[in-house]
Amino acid sequence: MLRHEQVSETIAHMITSGALSPGDKVPSLRKMSQDAGVSISTVSQAYINLEHQGVLEARPQSGFYVTEHAVDTPQAPEMKTTAAEPCCIPFRDLYNTIFSLAGRSDIVPLGAAVPSTSLLPVKGLLRATRRIMTEEPERVVSYAFPPGVRELREQIALAYTRMNTKVDVDQIIITTGATEALALGLQTVTRPGDVVAVESPTYFSVLKLMQQLGLMAVEVPTDPETGMDLDALDQIMETSDVKAVITVPNFQNPLGFTMPDENKQRLVEMLTARSVPLLEDDIYGDLHFGDRRPSPCKRFDTKGIVISCGCYSKNIAPGYRVGWVVPGRYYKEVLERKQAFNSATPTLTQLAVAEFLKSGEYERSLKRIRAALKREVGWVRHMICQHFPSETKVTNPAGGFILWVELPSNVSGRDLFDEALKKNISVTPGVLFSSLRHYRNCIRINCGYDQDTVKEDTFITLGKLIKKLALGK
Amino acid sequence: MLRHEQVSETIAHMITSGALSPGDKVPSLRKMSQDAGVSISTVSQAYINLEHQGVLEARPQSGFYVTEHAVDTPQAPEMKTTAAEPCCIPFRDLYNTIFSLAGRSDIVPLGAAVPSTSLLPVKGLLRATRRIMTEEPERVVSYAFPPGVRELREQIALAYTRMNTKVDVDQIIITTGATEALALGLQTVTRPGDVVAVESPTYFSVLKLMQQLGLMAVEVPTDPETGMDLDALDQIMETSDVKAVITVPNFQNPLGFTMPDENKQRLVEMLTARSVPLLEDDIYGDLHFGDRRPSPCKRFDTKGIVISCGCYSKNIAPGYRVGWVVPGRYYKEVLERKQAFNSATPTLTQLAVAEFLKSGEYERSLKRIRAALKREVGWVRHMICQHFPSETKVTNPAGGFILWVELPSNVSGRDLFDEALKKNISVTPGVLFSSLRHYRNCIRINCGYDQDTVKEDTFITLGKLIKKLALGK
Repeated sequence: MLRHEQVSETIAHMITSGALSPGDKVPSLRKMSQDAGVSISTVSQAYINLEHQGVLEARPQSGFYVTEHAVDTPQAPEMKTTAAEPCCIPFRDLYNTIFSLAGRSDIVPLGAAVPSTSLLPVKGLLRATRRIMTEEPERVVSYAFPPGVRELREQIALAYTRMNTKVDVDQIIITTGATEALALGLQTVTRPGDVVAVESPTYFSVLKLMQQLGLMAVEVPTDPETGMDLDALDQIMETSDVKAVITVPNFQNPLGFTMPDENKQRLVEMLTARSVPLLEDDIYGDLHFGDRRPSPCKRFDTKGIVISCGCYSKNIAPGYRVGWVVPGRYYKEVLERKQAFNSATPTLTQLAVAEFLKSGEYERSLKRIRAALKREVGWVRHMICQHFPSETKVTNPAGGFILWVELPSNVSGRDLFDEALKKNISVTPGVLFSSLRHYRNCIRINCGYDQDTVKEDTFITLGKLIKKLALGK
Repeated sequence: MLRHEQVSETIAHMITSGALSPGDKVPSLRKMSQDAGVSISTVSQAYINLEHQGVLEARPQSGFYVTEHAVDTPQAPEMKTTAAEPCCIPFRDLYNTIFSLAGRSDIVPLGAAVPSTSLLPVKGLLRATRRIMTEEPERVVSYAFPPGVRELREQIALAYTRMNTKVDVDQIIITTGATEALALGLQTVTRPGDVVAVESPTYFSVLKLMQQLGLMAVEVPTDPETGMDLDALDQIMETSDVKAVITVPNFQNPLGFTMPDENKQRLVEMLTARSVPLLEDDIYGDLHFGDRRPSPCKRFDTKGIVISCGCYSKNIAPGYRVGWVVPGRYYKEVLERKQAFNSATPTLTQLAVAEFLKSGEYERSLKRIRAALKREVGWVRHMICQHFPSETKVTNPAGGFILWVELPSNVSGRDLFDEALKKNISVTPGVLFSSLRHYRNCIRINCGYDQDTVKEDTFITLGKLIKKLALGK
């Protein structure tokens, strides 16, 4: 954790413990600097960040004070329970609209979960790409047949090692993004008509994939802080022939939860006992706000039932489409599917990402990205407290860049989407995240935008629209 | 056609018409130069090429003579007929071996149909890649959601227009290679257990894909010069519920045939009448030895039943994995599958190929590639005539870089593969090209190698091995 983050945590702790109340003056820059043993500019940075997040406010010629909203921790949204149903994605045109809006510069981009290039290490990656083109011109234009470029697999194996997870270079297959990793894994372990358990809500691309594969979805009640309700899953598996389970274990899309390690372990043990594969899509794990990266479920996999998927789309470059799958006991079948489906992933982007990872630039750029996302997620939560109706609930993720917002029960997220679009603001309606059209009064908000594009005005506008919709106007 | 190619054609015509016989002296450089209205160096180039192909031989201080082998046009291999069977690829380990050998510099690469980088426009493509990185740094790292980069689709639409085929920019979807194009199309129009008609022999990756999708294959008798026997196909469709037909219409892998336009048209009409989709994989069409690029089947498609697939893997860069599909009436479904399967194809490689195509360098580099392939295919045929047993049959493609060789009936292509590998030569056994393990005494030969790597010795060695195997030793 950075020093100014430690200062922020100290203040946050003082507020939650009651040592500081709304309206109280916080310790002066000089005093906090002495107490915490850090420079005055570090304290200043922490206070400015906290002001940005709405926890503190600066009063001219006086100092920083705790705001009235600082303790308004919004409540987390509720869980839903469901039964197995053929998977289908509601409003399929909406799906395309969300993505097409992501590319438009005239739209405030709170919709698609696409990180802004302003956050990404574009220059460093392009430098690495040029380097590899100069060094290996013939190789970059040649096939890199599956399992893919070895140097990249070495870097990925190293990353698993850092997470205390034993994954060998030869257990990894490079894919064209994590979606392909998931698709290959899911096709390998299911047949049309099979039942697959997913979190509720879950990422709509998972539902879309399942629909394409003709699968049935059972949506498992999911806690906004700890993830899938494992007792509920256990019960479902008693009565239903679940062929696979899909989870986004860390900073889930859209709820933002992180499964505690003991839950991950229990989940893996439960499924190992039943010989049911677990597909994990751990694409946000590197974007943790705290000190430690959360573990992948793979860490607890002793029998090879976890199919672990990841990619560099959220933290290096979405457009490079570099992902991977560690298929465990399904390695051979997944490899064959990859060969059959598109022969190989492009070589240039694989080599460029490997080169970028080897240079050490990735770890450095991650620090910057994490700090920026933590700040923005905090600020957007503050904006929601300030400007949305008081019944609004919002999640509190410890990483990633997504917030899930439960609006007053009579407000339709779909209607809000339509109204907001008229004001050039894009959000994602909650109904997209459930095959059963739950979450009608929810929306998902992307905080990975370019910080110059989103101002307080946006949330004032959204707040007004929500209040209008709540009144049935 | 280049001028020296016109001279070659003239000589070839004189030989086939009987105006020149084996042992005859051909017109002197000076005389031919005057007759054909071209420079002496052009005639010289033509004669040297023909010598390389074994049609002429140079006699010191005398001139060029027609060789004894010039009229030994080897016979074309025979057709096979079959019935519908669950598709499976024989020897699946062999499949991986063939590809892994393609990357080894100590192996003479007559196995995998991978064009050598020495033939490809590597420098020009890398220049285009650098240009696009400089001009659009943010765009190359961002998603290019399906249908993919517009500039690239424009270039592809233009290429269809040049083939007298009306394809609009908005009918094209970019894919990660032609294999993915075919996979998306085939998944869209079939369900597991469905019957699909394919050429016999057909490319083994088609069989591998069909096996993965749980499809039944019916192998249609296929003529080595004109392709699928349409009467036979018609009969098959009378008795069997064929859900799709797959063809490689131009310079097919492995037979090298080109379907005449009237056959293409009849095939499309037959299938239109039955509302059965035709998947065409036209990846070799640009590599024609003659003046005109052969048509795609899409040209004759009035009702949108043709799913036309292509890529730049055989003529620009295999490792860039840039392909496309024109799905006709199945556009929406194929687009959804693409989205669900891997979200998008990498942006950088799409933009780089578009930039390369726009620059006009592609057309220039194609001329060079075609000339080189025509020469090598001719030379390898000549080598086979010289050094393989006289019963050997070999195809005579008018484009591409693949030869199909039928060995004496008691020689196993699989055994030859094993023996040749001991001598560091890779060939592809014919059994891989049929779900029913036909073609046991056939091999496929890749002529798209680096010209420095393959010498006459290779064919002397192969010839000896074949003769030994024929004697049962």
